[in-house]
Amino acid sequence: MAARFDTITFLSDYGTGDEFVGVVHSVIRSIAPRVAVVDLTHEIPPYDVRAGSLTLGRAAQYLCPGVVLAVVDPGVATPRRAVAIEVGGGQSYLVGPDNGLLASAVAMSGGATAAVELTNPAYQLPAPGPTFAGRDVFAPAAAHLCLGVPLDDFGPLVDPLSLLPGLIPLTRDDDGDLVGEVLWVDRYGNCQLNVDPDEVAELGARVQLQWGDDARTADRSASYEDLGPTQVGLVVDSYGMLSICLGRRSAADELGLHVGSEVKLVGLADDGTPAAPSQSVTLTPRSNR
Amino acid sequence: MAARFDTITFLSDYGTGDEFVGVVHSVIRSIAPRVAVVDLTHEIPPYDVRAGSLTLGRAAQYLCPGVVLAVVDPGVATPRRAVAIEVGGGQSYLVGPDNGLLASAVAMSGGATAAVELTNPAYQLPAPGPTFAGRDVFAPAAAHLCLGVPLDDFGPLVDPLSLLPGLIPLTRDDDGDLVGEVLWVDRYGNCQLNVDPDEVAELGARVQLQWGDDARTADRSASYEDLGPTQVGLVVDSYGMLSICLGRRSAADELGLHVGSEVKLVGLADDGTPAAPSQSVTLTPRSNR
Amino acid sequence: MAARFDTITFLSDYGTGDEFVGVVHSVIRSIAPRVAVVDLTHEIPPYDVRAGSLTLGRAAQYLCPGVVLAVVDPGVATPRRAVAIEVGGGQSYLVGPDNGLLASAVAMSGGATAAVELTNPAYQLPAPGPTFAGRDVFAPAAAHLCLGVPLDDFGPLVDPLSLLPGLIPLTRDDDGDLVGEVLWVDRYGNCQLNVDPDEVAELGARVQLQWGDDARTADRSASYEDLGPTQVGLVVDSYGMLSICLGRRSAADELGLHVGSEVKLVGLADDGTPAAPSQSVTLTPRSNR
Repeated sequence: MAARFDTITFLSDYGTGDEFVGVVHSVIRSIAPRVAVVDLTHEIPPYDVRAGSLTLGRAAQYLCPGVVLAVVDPGVATPRRAVAIEVGGGQSYLVGPDNGLLASAVAMSGGATAAVELTNPAYQLPAPGPTFAGRDVFAPAAAHLCLGVPLDDFGPLVDPLSLLPGLIPLTRDDDGDLVGEVLWVDRYGNCQLNVDPDEVAELGARVQLQWGDDARTADRSASYEDLGPTQVGLVVDSYGMLSICLGRRSAADELGLHVGSEVKLVGLADDGTPAAPSQSVTLTPRSNR
Repeated sequence: MAARFDTITFLSDYGTGDEFVGVVHSVIRSIAPRVAVVDLTHEIPPYDVRAGSLTLGRAAQYLCPGVVLAVVDPGVATPRRAVAIEVGGGQSYLVGPDNGLLASAVAMSGGATAAVELTNPAYQLPAPGPTFAGRDVFAPAAAHLCLGVPLDDFGPLVDPLSLLPGLIPLTRDDDGDLVGEVLWVDRYGNCQLNVDPDEVAELGARVQLQWGDDARTADRSASYEDLGPTQVGLVVDSYGMLSICLGRRSAADELGLHVGSEVKLVGLADDGTPAAPSQSVTLTPRSNR
Repeated sequence: MAARFDTITFLSDYGTGDEFVGVVHSVIRSIAPRVAVVDLTHEIPPYDVRAGSLTLGRAAQYLCPGVVLAVVDPGVATPRRAVAIEVGGGQSYLVGPDNGLLASAVAMSGGATAAVELTNPAYQLPAPGPTFAGRDVFAPAAAHLCLGVPLDDFGPLVDPLSLLPGLIPLTRDDDGDLVGEVLWVDRYGNCQLNVDPDEVAELGARVQLQWGDDARTADRSASYEDLGPTQVGLVVDSYGMLSICLGRRSAADELGLHVGSEVKLVGLADDGTPAAPSQSVTLTPRSNR
């Protein structure tokens, strides 16, 4: 059997305080000693499938060919399926629970070309209890996929169309104004919106942001550092999405924004007052990348 | 000299905020460039030898053959011995301080077949100060063990029976009721007890948990997810031990449990009242695995 | 092209909560699959160039030959230069922003023998936005340096003397008393000072520490563990610098010290009162290692 890959990219909500991540590494290395494991992050908030899915989606285009192993699994030990998904006709594989976690990375990689349910005990570790699927089911599958085990050896084929889709919130049109949502607050407090720069092209260089009972004027900016100390910036971030930020400070902390906050973006007239919505800024919901 | 191993599994209380872990990796790679280091965890609470020992014990059966490097070392720079321990006649080695940290992993691996004190300066780094044994003593020893240096080159042989044992608390019998202790609170707030499922087999499907001034009824459950929103579960966890948990929430936070909390487990009669202890539930302390 | 190195040592302020570190690993592995990445730490406080520089300086002498990749970059997407620096005539390279971050490691490695600005787009990833230099500029440069790409292929040569120096605070003389500063508080709460043991040799075995409105008597000690429960120790740490510590407890927490705290060190007379400064303890500022 010829080795298929030598890289597994690993994301989870395990944290690094317990030994979970290390044990998964060890299980992989015991099965496939030549395979390197790249840790994407293990600090996905416990059970937060959406955050895990968005993280995978952001990273997808930068990942080495190989196997993506992802475990955020509130339904561990319940009937949700454990799956392996082939993308690009075998260019990469994704292994994890069928709960939407893998959907956005699958989409970014061109869609599933095949999938199986991981049921074959020959590629699982015997477990004293039912609750550590990462160690006993997913890690062994990822390792054996690298070694070249054919996909359909792992269990019955599954219709890719039956896989649970990811749920990325769409922007919406509120009487001609665009309403987005904070998808991600990064370590620096920058707030990535579910808004493509094309959607706000017509709003001009200054935009009013409205959320909760607050409103602030934001400037479109090419970088975080061009921003003055009291200025709010609306920057195209390194993933190509619109992001609310402050110069060297946390926009999330200072503006009271968090994942899920809804933010309305309103164009400003030349005199600084919110422009009346016009036909030309009527927006239609669009799917996210 | 033929290489003996190509994997070092590394656990410590170093955290990852400082450069300690990275420097140890770098020292190992400088000595043994072909050896991979698997990080088990470095978030053992500072100086908490027992937590480190329990973590190693849980992970032991899943580790690759190779060298285990473990450093939780309140006695750094004092006369406690630095040791390397052979298990399984050379199947694996454990390197660290002789303070009980390695004991549970040694026991899980079948016991020590030989041990040495790490005193030979030829396998140590010269240190400007006396306090970073991980970098200067333990990492070089682990790396040289991988390279194939004979055990007794590192220093004088030590009687394995003289190694400090680990201290795992036993369950105890309180007038016929079983009293256990929380050994570990994991990231999800599940509370692992020092209780083997066999010890509570006769208590039935519902058990009253008593701790401090609190008491709650818990249901034996095959999974975390079968639990209703207000239900407390008593689950056999993925290590085969009994664990107190809530569905998708932190049992530790919500019930006020923490490592070291004593919990009494009382069988419930059919009418839901605590059953009077009977002969059949008289329990005797037993050693842990 | 013959491979030059197989190790990249990586430090940043990215944290591990987002996917930044993993994506950088993945980019490196895509370009240079045989190169191992050693993570020094990614928990440098956001934008804290000085903390990053000190960490690199402490670690420098323990690093494998190879490329150091360091990213703490408040000026991302502004005109600060992105650079690669050769040290030891090609023994190692450092890649990062030219903002002082690399200065202390460069100095510890014997000084820069050449440097270039990273401008050649052939060794960069195309970016949808301008803000993730670690992924798009620095990681590809580090990977291609390992592969053997000549330094001057990356962009125009830069005069090493034009590189921004690091700023390590000097101790100062306050009327004959030595005033140092806390450079680093480690995980255990030990407070490393910018004071070389030689500077306090004449102060004897007991020293009064004065900071803010507080003062405590500290004992010179060979180890943390020799200290009694209420004793403050002044220990030569594992990097050869003077450090304020308590036995198994956090000196920083208990004494209210933090990075940047100024501490005066005063010799004690035999009767325990602060000795009047004498000629023999007149101190002159000195450069740090």
